[in-house]
Amino acid sequence: MRDFSQDIDWLSINTATIRKQHGQEVALNTLLDQCASAGIRAVSPWRDQVAAVGLNSIAAQIRAHGMALSGYCRGGFFPAADAAGLRAALDDNRRAIDEAKILDAPCLVMVVGALPGALDGQAHYHDIARARQEVLDGLAASLEYAREVGMPLAIEPLHPMQAADRACINTLEHALDMCDALDPDATGALGVALDVYHVWWDPKLQQQIVRAGAKRLLAYHVCDWLTPTRDLLLDRGMMGDGVVELKKIRQWVEAAGFRGYSEVEIFSERNWWQCSGEQTLQVCKQRHQTVV
Amino acid sequence: MRDFSQDIDWLSINTATIRKQHGQEVALNTLLDQCASAGIRAVSPWRDQVAAVGLNSIAAQIRAHGMALSGYCRGGFFPAADAAGLRAALDDNRRAIDEAKILDAPCLVMVVGALPGALDGQAHYHDIARARQEVLDGLAASLEYAREVGMPLAIEPLHPMQAADRACINTLEHALDMCDALDPDATGALGVALDVYHVWWDPKLQQQIVRAGAKRLLAYHVCDWLTPTRDLLLDRGMMGDGVVELKKIRQWVEAAGFRGYSEVEIFSERNWWQCSGEQTLQVCKQRHQTVV
Repeated sequence: MRDFSQDIDWLSINTATIRKQHGQEVALNTLLDQCASAGIRAVSPWRDQVAAVGLNSIAAQIRAHGMALSGYCRGGFFPAADAAGLRAALDDNRRAIDEAKILDAPCLVMVVGALPGALDGQAHYHDIARARQEVLDGLAASLEYAREVGMPLAIEPLHPMQAADRACINTLEHALDMCDALDPDATGALGVALDVYHVWWDPKLQQQIVRAGAKRLLAYHVCDWLTPTRDLLLDRGMMGDGVVELKKIRQWVEAAGFRGYSEVEIFSERNWWQCSGEQTLQVCKQRHQTVV
Repeated sequence: MRDFSQDIDWLSINTATIRKQHGQEVALNTLLDQCASAGIRAVSPWRDQVAAVGLNSIAAQIRAHGMALSGYCRGGFFPAADAAGLRAALDDNRRAIDEAKILDAPCLVMVVGALPGALDGQAHYHDIARARQEVLDGLAASLEYAREVGMPLAIEPLHPMQAADRACINTLEHALDMCDALDPDATGALGVALDVYHVWWDPKLQQQIVRAGAKRLLAYHVCDWLTPTRDLLLDRGMMGDGVVELKKIRQWVEAAGFRGYSEVEIFSERNWWQCSGEQTLQVCKQRHQTVV
């Protein structure tokens, strides 16, 4: 396993981690400057943050800072109430792929979607098998374009507590089944973004990481699971503050051949989003070197 | 699939569903009288509720009402910080088995436990594989005694969002693997309590229900998954108010041979625990006949 204790060369910051500071939203250009000042070499920005500042401007800023991307958040949300919605989702994913390309991201992270409408409190249908089929079809169509332009797609299995509203792919095994169906030769065009928050509990995690191998492991995200967890979305913990066996899981991932960034992605309304960006980045760096 | 629309013969009420009324705890003897008045034929009581009134008194009351049990909640919580804790858990499970026998329950529901201490906010260790081994060992020891006295044990896989603090068996597949390890001949002494709330999201659910078969399906619990869900424990929905495909799952369970009660288990601090017992039971009956 790589030694992270001496530097932060393999630390990446998902910009959601510091998107709120002292409870207020902060623009991505400011976040990128803060990361650069903290010596962060890699980031993973979100589409809405990029759009708010401007794609070309952000791309130029990232180049100027000499930063790498560890991923681009995010494509997906394929299922829809009707055919027009399905088409709109494909168009939107095409734009996301184009943006990822302009930003020179190594992959586009796919949060695949679930029961359409559920995120707004009223699902248009309850048939999760239908949602999964729409995801498979949507991924197939997006993959075709992604292959053309050379942008790998990384399916992120989300925690089962987000199966209704955000992603109906909820285990690494399920994500890899989708990969095998759509990219049986493991060309590198399709893989997974493995976030410990979503998968740490899975009794088949190690086995499926071995199955994934380096060809499918396109991104690796860290944070921690707090006890108690007070919100299904916005109460993630800083690495070391929860129960996730971070070193054990990284060992598995690296044994399977992964050599990329360890990307910190924390949504924490009650804690880290109340701090300054400098404070949060400082703790991310320290924990990266000690507990990740 | 059995027709539930004409009567409530196969409806059971887990007494947690009405344990609070208008926000206040209500004693089990009162709950049982309310169930009897509502024409409920079967219940599943909790150990703490039974202990608060008295085991023999509750057993007599259930007999007097001519009620059946669909299960007894609950044994388990095997993992512990040290050897003394492990022994204490086994002793406690032996007492739970004895109580289930006195109450003439068809099975003791096992919420197996997880990282010891996590429920109180500070896990004594983070090694979930160790917790799972302690669960396996604890189940093996308890099963020996349960076989002697003839009390089937029903492992309840809990939702992965409760993997840290309540149960480290989180999929039906995992529960069945444990059953196969401890009771390879499927004697009926060990099986599962399948609660739709915990498993509805699982892409392997149907496949694993087929695998389970009648011998392993010892109990069936219903409620619903709300969007949004505001609490990881106490925000379950009434059947029909969420996204769970209740009829589809019951069809699978019955196709696998299950013929027992459909037990309503709802923990709902914000909604049903603010109602009267009569109101909640009335809605349970109506939904049992229409959407379950």
